[in-house]
Amino acid sequence: MSYSALTHHFQQQYHLQHIAAICGWDQATMMPSGGNQARAEAMSTLAVLSHQQLQAPQLADWFAAAKAESLTAAQSVSLTAMQRQWRDATMLPSDLVGAFSLAGSRCEHAWRSLRPANDWAGFLPLFEEILNLSRQVAAARADALGLSCYDSLLEQFEPGMRTATLDPLFAGVKQWLPDLITEVQAKQARVRVLQPSGTFATAKQKALGLEVMRLLGFDFNHGRLDVSAHPFCGGVSEDVRLTTRYDEQDVAQALMGVIHETGHARYEQGLPTQWRSLPVGQARSMGIHESQSLFFEMQLARHPAFIAQLAPMLVQQFGEQAAFSPDNLAKLYTRVQPGLIRVDADELTYPAHVMLRYEIERDLIEGQLQAKDLPERWDQLMQQYLGISTQGNYKDGCMQDIHWTDGSFGYFPSYTLGAMYAAQQAQAIQTELGSFEQLISHNLPSIFDWLQRNIWQHASLLDTDALITQACGQPLTANAFKLHLEQRYLG
Amino acid sequence: MSYSALTHHFQQQYHLQHIAAICGWDQATMMPSGGNQARAEAMSTLAVLSHQQLQAPQLADWFAAAKAESLTAAQSVSLTAMQRQWRDATMLPSDLVGAFSLAGSRCEHAWRSLRPANDWAGFLPLFEEILNLSRQVAAARADALGLSCYDSLLEQFEPGMRTATLDPLFAGVKQWLPDLITEVQAKQARVRVLQPSGTFATAKQKALGLEVMRLLGFDFNHGRLDVSAHPFCGGVSEDVRLTTRYDEQDVAQALMGVIHETGHARYEQGLPTQWRSLPVGQARSMGIHESQSLFFEMQLARHPAFIAQLAPMLVQQFGEQAAFSPDNLAKLYTRVQPGLIRVDADELTYPAHVMLRYEIERDLIEGQLQAKDLPERWDQLMQQYLGISTQGNYKDGCMQDIHWTDGSFGYFPSYTLGAMYAAQQAQAIQTELGSFEQLISHNLPSIFDWLQRNIWQHASLLDTDALITQACGQPLTANAFKLHLEQRYLG
Repeated sequence: MSYSALTHHFQQQYHLQHIAAICGWDQATMMPSGGNQARAEAMSTLAVLSHQQLQAPQLADWFAAAKAESLTAAQSVSLTAMQRQWRDATMLPSDLVGAFSLAGSRCEHAWRSLRPANDWAGFLPLFEEILNLSRQVAAARADALGLSCYDSLLEQFEPGMRTATLDPLFAGVKQWLPDLITEVQAKQARVRVLQPSGTFATAKQKALGLEVMRLLGFDFNHGRLDVSAHPFCGGVSEDVRLTTRYDEQDVAQALMGVIHETGHARYEQGLPTQWRSLPVGQARSMGIHESQSLFFEMQLARHPAFIAQLAPMLVQQFGEQAAFSPDNLAKLYTRVQPGLIRVDADELTYPAHVMLRYEIERDLIEGQLQAKDLPERWDQLMQQYLGISTQGNYKDGCMQDIHWTDGSFGYFPSYTLGAMYAAQQAQAIQTELGSFEQLISHNLPSIFDWLQRNIWQHASLLDTDALITQACGQPLTANAFKLHLEQRYLG
Repeated sequence: MSYSALTHHFQQQYHLQHIAAICGWDQATMMPSGGNQARAEAMSTLAVLSHQQLQAPQLADWFAAAKAESLTAAQSVSLTAMQRQWRDATMLPSDLVGAFSLAGSRCEHAWRSLRPANDWAGFLPLFEEILNLSRQVAAARADALGLSCYDSLLEQFEPGMRTATLDPLFAGVKQWLPDLITEVQAKQARVRVLQPSGTFATAKQKALGLEVMRLLGFDFNHGRLDVSAHPFCGGVSEDVRLTTRYDEQDVAQALMGVIHETGHARYEQGLPTQWRSLPVGQARSMGIHESQSLFFEMQLARHPAFIAQLAPMLVQQFGEQAAFSPDNLAKLYTRVQPGLIRVDADELTYPAHVMLRYEIERDLIEGQLQAKDLPERWDQLMQQYLGISTQGNYKDGCMQDIHWTDGSFGYFPSYTLGAMYAAQQAQAIQTELGSFEQLISHNLPSIFDWLQRNIWQHASLLDTDALITQACGQPLTANAFKLHLEQRYLG
């Protein structure tokens, strides 16, 4: 039976992804630097063989035959998901894949030293090369999928999402966000907040992180916590590898980072076991993934009822100080301050960073903006959305993110879609189960159960619209997100 | 050119071995136990695809064509090594390779909890499964190579070695070893030895191990030290992963274990870089590998001149005590006491453990012994060689070793072959450069340089007989080993 042959084939593909994920995790957390050249070569060979496996010539026949077989509804959805993964792997000519991968490696590698040197002139030709190849990739995908160029890239990260949806959604946010930021800043200017003082030993921060992960239901029989320069949630659903980094002067960075990654991890750990090794059993989209990390970090962890539980843990590890009062921590963890750097941004200004990048990358890919004009456009939008100039400051401006350097155009919207989905989920939970104040204080597991039932267990069995509509009673809007921000920051 | 096509192909194979080695290391050191099922499946798929890659149909033509090409002498040897690896891979059907890998992962994983529980009944069916598959592997290999079943497995670890050589070699040792053990025990019974007392914190033991590794020239830019239940030297030459385990009541176990594994590691790190990714650039055999670990642990580290350097390191970590005097440590580290556990055995009784295993695994593979009869046979030989009963004590008897759990039958003889090779190398060095007393005290690097020139840099460019004859002036015998034991324990 072709369906079961396909199932076996895609399970093998999943196994190779498992191997690559563990070796990638090792490279970031454990590997001595002298091992890097050999590791890069080994992982490149694995990627080539994995890609070849996915392009096996018999798959086309199997897909054709499987459609005529008698399948359950779930199997049909699974078949579609396999075909989508296969289509993604086969729609690009292999010389374009090779050139794109090489230019991405080259640009990303150079970026690591050019960014700290603020060297836009040195970066520009490499960026032009990866942009040019990304446009070719987009054009080939657009042609195969019958989409616009940018939509064809978006489709990789956020299946079903289109510019036609994003443009009005983000336009709506732009109408109220800048004023809201100004208003919140004016309100917070009158409020005194204490910064925790002292040195926060790495070992104690790690103990705190593990305690919070346990509180959040992380399954340590299927995962672990380690250190890497750039935190991520890696590994596989059966063995989720979280990483963080510790700054002994700042306890919040690792703490909130661990909570954020724990959101990703619980989604992975909660995916349905019976579909786990097939495309349909994997996370629905980057936006849904981000919705879980942001649900944990923003909806849960920065809620006063959760902070009331964090405060004694901080005191236990680091001793009493006034800054660790629940009231002060709540103010500290919701402090709004427009800044240059996206990854350091607070909950309220973060969407401005994302919308800026969305507009720019859309125009870059559609050919309406040229690489050389990027700094000027960046500066103009930063002034418009956050009132900050980046003129001449490339390293904290248009050169700050890794995404475009390796050609990951189309990813940025997922961050703010995730924030919106998370707000809708939090609203639905409170409508259904009661206020977060009560739930977080007395029945945290009921929240995780809701997420398990409504999000995690569905993996990719539902498309994103259906998933959100079924879970929240309505499709995606920015309403819940706006309401959440107003209540938290002005309420 | 077919030779260069083969070179590229075998480099890819090396990359897949790299990936498998890192994932295997992770499984033993980092992976939470809940991740094991998925890991076993993923590694099984990797083994199957790696095996398929090695079986690519074009290889037969390439090998035929390469023989007609103009190659250097070294390239010809490299070609032979590739062909040997290819022959090893093609003689087994893919489904047997996959089943063998899966059963090995399953049995080894279960063994980790069944052994401490002394659960022979629980272990037996898993052991029967891996033994059954090992017999199938042996039969297929024997058929292809024209060897007996057991010799066909031995050939994997010790190319060129045969039962016909081992039987008389070990029979010779059995003639003098039991008497020597008795004589040494009688002599040592009159000598008072102090046991170090106190608790030896894991962190300090680790610091001591790292210091000794530095003294022994381990390259930390291409490797690291971690913890696993069963210590090993894994990873790849460019990134060697040593493991040990710590007992806070006993500082010698981890210390000597780390020194042993450092011997393996320096061999790996010392392999010639220009051949590194090809079969000819890899370690010659397990016996040669063990000769390096035993050279470090037995010839070097238990020599009084080396112990004189270890003693102040122990004092620095754990404080002064009479047991840490060089004289007492030298007595302690050469104490002979027949015991149940191979990995805890002293230098003198160790060969008895190996010969017992050799006889048993030979009979298991040749079908002259059944899995269910293993405990009885084990007990009988333990009584005969070391005068100790293991009746009902499976965990310290036939369940103590990891080797058979993943189907590594044919490996055990390498340990005692290694001890013999190491003794021959030590004898050759002293003939050539002067006494160990002087060299260890004043010029340790000259010993490593000799090993680099005579063993490490030759990788598999010479066969084992030629390697040993060229390095030591004569082929393998037990003479140097016997002389070394007599001088150290009766001298």
